[in-house]
Amino acid sequence: MNTLPPLTYDANGLIPAVVQDAESGAVLMLGWMNATAVARTLESGQVHFWSRRRQALWRKGETSGHTLTVVDVHVDCDADALLIRARPAGPTCHTGHATCFYRRLEDLTAHPPTITEMEP
Amino acid sequence: MNTLPPLTYDANGLIPAVVQDAESGAVLMLGWMNATAVARTLESGQVHFWSRRRQALWRKGETSGHTLTVVDVHVDCDADALLIRARPAGPTCHTGHATCFYRRLEDLTAHPPTITEMEP
Repeated sequence: MNTLPPLTYDANGLIPAVVQDAESGAVLMLGWMNATAVARTLESGQVHFWSRRRQALWRKGETSGHTLTVVDVHVDCDADALLIRARPAGPTCHTGHATCFYRRLEDLTAHPPTITEMEP
Repeated sequence: MNTLPPLTYDANGLIPAVVQDAESGAVLMLGWMNATAVARTLESGQVHFWSRRRQALWRKGETSGHTLTVVDVHVDCDADALLIRARPAGPTCHTGHATCFYRRLEDLTAHPPTITEMEP
């Protein structure tokens, strides 16, 4: 793909991407992409993100093997968010859960997350 | 609800919230919440957002009538994104589409959005 679509990136050059299981409809995760991650995702058919913590491009599953293969990509009305329907290979969350959204909000008060630092 | 759960907000005090149709599983929109919007959403059972453009709290549907009634709220592994399953009253998108994600990314190049300004 030579021409990238005119997406609206935030002040850090990022756009949020929601990943949905194309089969079950479950929302698997929300990640962040810069223009390079968008381009690599479209070129390769494998979901790529920009890690805000590591400040590096990463292909989902590059170490875990739990890749996300793109089925299709939609963009919202003001072009500042993406929805990627994908086929997950294994659990998407690093915790081993199928989805990163495995907790009800009510449970969070009882079991706070270990990661609480603010990302840029 | 007196105690708010320990969510991780970004540098602007916001957290992205993905809204999914509880019935169909369709992803309807991605909006932004500050702590007040989270609290109002949980208290009222109606989805509230923080408008980055208008810098104001808004209840989804307060002018259009196209509200989103909360079914449940999940939080992701690092507590910096929310997933809200909801029952939409009418189309969620201001364009009249059921979902804000009504376009394939490929279509965006042919039909660029009218809103291209960068939000803070």
